[in-house]
Amino acid sequence: MTQQTSQAMDDLLTDLRAALPPHTLVTDPTERDTYACDGLAAYRVRPGLVVLVDTAEQVAATVRACARHHVPFVARGSGTGLSGGALPHADGVLVVTSRLRTLHEVRPQDQRAVADPGVINLQVSKAANPHGYYFAPDPSSQQICSIGGNVAENSGGAHCLKYGFTAGHVLSLEVVTPDGEQVTLGTEAPDAPGYDLLGAFVGSEGTLGIATRATLRLTRMPEDVRTCLAGFASTDEAGSATSAIIAAGVVPAAIEIMDALAIEAAEKAVSCGYPEGAGAVLVIELDGPEVEVAHELERVRQLCDEHGCSEFRAATDAAERAEIWKGRKSAFAAVGRISPDYIVQDGVVPRTSLPDVLREMGRISRERGVRVANVFHAGDGNLHPLVLFDASQNGATERAEEVSGMILDLCIEHGGSITGEHGVGADKARYMPRMFSEEDLDTMQLVRCAFDPAHLANPGKIYPTPRMCGERPRVVHAADEPVVAGAEVF
Amino acid sequence: MTQQTSQAMDDLLTDLRAALPPHTLVTDPTERDTYACDGLAAYRVRPGLVVLVDTAEQVAATVRACARHHVPFVARGSGTGLSGGALPHADGVLVVTSRLRTLHEVRPQDQRAVADPGVINLQVSKAANPHGYYFAPDPSSQQICSIGGNVAENSGGAHCLKYGFTAGHVLSLEVVTPDGEQVTLGTEAPDAPGYDLLGAFVGSEGTLGIATRATLRLTRMPEDVRTCLAGFASTDEAGSATSAIIAAGVVPAAIEIMDALAIEAAEKAVSCGYPEGAGAVLVIELDGPEVEVAHELERVRQLCDEHGCSEFRAATDAAERAEIWKGRKSAFAAVGRISPDYIVQDGVVPRTSLPDVLREMGRISRERGVRVANVFHAGDGNLHPLVLFDASQNGATERAEEVSGMILDLCIEHGGSITGEHGVGADKARYMPRMFSEEDLDTMQLVRCAFDPAHLANPGKIYPTPRMCGERPRVVHAADEPVVAGAEVF
Repeated sequence: MTQQTSQAMDDLLTDLRAALPPHTLVTDPTERDTYACDGLAAYRVRPGLVVLVDTAEQVAATVRACARHHVPFVARGSGTGLSGGALPHADGVLVVTSRLRTLHEVRPQDQRAVADPGVINLQVSKAANPHGYYFAPDPSSQQICSIGGNVAENSGGAHCLKYGFTAGHVLSLEVVTPDGEQVTLGTEAPDAPGYDLLGAFVGSEGTLGIATRATLRLTRMPEDVRTCLAGFASTDEAGSATSAIIAAGVVPAAIEIMDALAIEAAEKAVSCGYPEGAGAVLVIELDGPEVEVAHELERVRQLCDEHGCSEFRAATDAAERAEIWKGRKSAFAAVGRISPDYIVQDGVVPRTSLPDVLREMGRISRERGVRVANVFHAGDGNLHPLVLFDASQNGATERAEEVSGMILDLCIEHGGSITGEHGVGADKARYMPRMFSEEDLDTMQLVRCAFDPAHLANPGKIYPTPRMCGERPRVVHAADEPVVAGAEVF
Repeated sequence: MTQQTSQAMDDLLTDLRAALPPHTLVTDPTERDTYACDGLAAYRVRPGLVVLVDTAEQVAATVRACARHHVPFVARGSGTGLSGGALPHADGVLVVTSRLRTLHEVRPQDQRAVADPGVINLQVSKAANPHGYYFAPDPSSQQICSIGGNVAENSGGAHCLKYGFTAGHVLSLEVVTPDGEQVTLGTEAPDAPGYDLLGAFVGSEGTLGIATRATLRLTRMPEDVRTCLAGFASTDEAGSATSAIIAAGVVPAAIEIMDALAIEAAEKAVSCGYPEGAGAVLVIELDGPEVEVAHELERVRQLCDEHGCSEFRAATDAAERAEIWKGRKSAFAAVGRISPDYIVQDGVVPRTSLPDVLREMGRISRERGVRVANVFHAGDGNLHPLVLFDASQNGATERAEEVSGMILDLCIEHGGSITGEHGVGADKARYMPRMFSEEDLDTMQLVRCAFDPAHLANPGKIYPTPRMCGERPRVVHAADEPVVAGAEVF
């Protein structure tokens, strides 16, 4: 910490001690260390100060103090993100929103819920379930991740194939902007007038401000859910079957793929009993009215058969459904059974490119001698390759990282993207220029500069190499003038 | 035109004559007059200059010249908008995109189409239909309105209840920003990294730039479509039936409501044979797999019965379907049969407030002695009250305008919005402060200031009374620095 930043932090602390209750301020270095990383533990930074806020007003007071003393701030929810989006700043404040956990309203008649940012994702569904509703975005961390983090990262999940990402399930947000102002973005009405800044804010990874309250859309629980498991000789057949199912107009709630290596890991960990010797399996979930689901199940079975399916099972009750999901859900952790270390990569390709991309990935894996297990959301082409390595072997970490980067290049080459749902964060900012032109990135940063000219909101995330902003644009309130300048009635 | 603006326009013309082919420039006053209004003919302004662009590069050249000479510009597609969004500026340039009408690609395998902004909405569906796909947004002007206009206004339509507005069907846009730069917003991948400026651009009514190419999402044509007509004693019962249908988890493709006055007008115009003496009808369309539609049709029939339906008809073939839609589709024009003049209003309320709002509207109508016919998208609470008047009667226009404004206030009071799908444009900017706080509007305008500090892109639209911007924020390219400032490996 330089002399200058240390002085700024001291001044900030003086202000915050006057404005906030003592229990909200965490200054002890050892306590601060517990917040050093999020779900991407490869990066660790001890935050300069941690503020455990109790109210939206405390968020605003903290951010205003940061603006005054030119101290960066980073928001953190449950800290489950996988791209280092909540990685602290060594000379900055970490604003932890997990104590803001009131679920203010559940209004099934309007399909709405109003939640604080620290409310746990699954808690919303649990409160809505008795009324026949749930909150659709279901990241695999949904038992611990928070609504604020879901908003920041525009979180997806296995079922976003049918139901879409978080952005489609947020109606409006109360937000503290980087200058400490409290504003509302969006309205509950469809096609709200004015700019859809809500859409820009959701997924902005903490760089445009901190959400302090969210109005969420609830989704009707389906009348019926059927989960099935289809075994194939290779990911080629499984990928083609996926394309055929979508092309037939069936939109399953989820289509997940696992390759041989991922199946091996899952079997070792949880004995899920997937088809023996299968080179790939699909886990397909259908939901909707009972008659529709029954109809679609037959169509899916038929399409899997036509694409070389060796075994097809449809769960007939909740226990069998859970059994099918068990292998898929344990897969990431299970990979620890077959490899001491691994990188969870996240990329997207057009669904129709899946077989090509998987073949190319196999080639890279063989050529570099690095094993890659595939477990991912096949339906929307969202890959989660697990790049396996043993950090104790010389050069293995570097080789794994290289392969991991090559996979992203492969995604870009095929018209895809460097992240499907985990975000850019600290980890992938360096890949942004491979995907966007300088003009595209500058246009995005115009907005960042408009909201946060001093670059205090989660600096270093999303955009590669810091770019400074010139003057901030101000809205100047001029004297009233007629709405339509120069209008004349003919 | 002042001396100063006249000089700016002369200088601009000199530049444009050097940069563009002669046939693109329309200077003749009589010819310019033909572009004086869009679908909201109450406002008319003769544009200072009309440019009929042939290419995206010509759009960029025109906008760059406008920036150079500080001349405002307004984009216009087919000019069918109903809020005056394409109302020209007397001292500005009208950039007409209707010659940019190439449909570049239809890729059914990826569910994508790539279209110029002047491509007609329905043309996309016509090209996709042979492959089993269509473009879902269906404003009632879809036979003539253009993709560029749909993007600018975030257009809806009868079927956006199930399929959503234009914003949900645009994957990426090539855009000319107000400084004449050509950038790409969005990617084809889900959850694109960086800010979702695409969402902010769609529906920005021409104030953030001009779209020159759009990548659109195509939707699978449903296996089956069933349309039904239900007669009720009043809009109360029809509104309750609508809420009950949605609450039951059925999401029809469309639920349209017409009240007694609208039915009367439609009968006079097209003899649609709606249930005799009905105080309200619902037109309900269901689509999806055949088995699902059959199942839902029975559920809808039952719910309508439970809510006092006097007559229920389900079309059995395309001819009967067209017959049911005929009354609804002709309703706006048909109102001319029962009233010499009318205002088409556009507002939204939460669906559950529909019965209350309709009753209140009836009270206002009786108290003020102004007839109001209701024809609207009941499923998503998007009202289109038709305020009837006779302009030849003393004070009738003013009374109609007052009632029209009171209806918007009613929408806001009930947690709704001042526009459902027609946009704010020139017409409703004055209502924005009734809905948004000054801080909210300032935050939206920060983005406008970032993109367009000189206020040249469609000035006077959306935001009430012009507000000036201070310095534009610039992105300053600093020397490279490490991505994560202060990161350390523990």
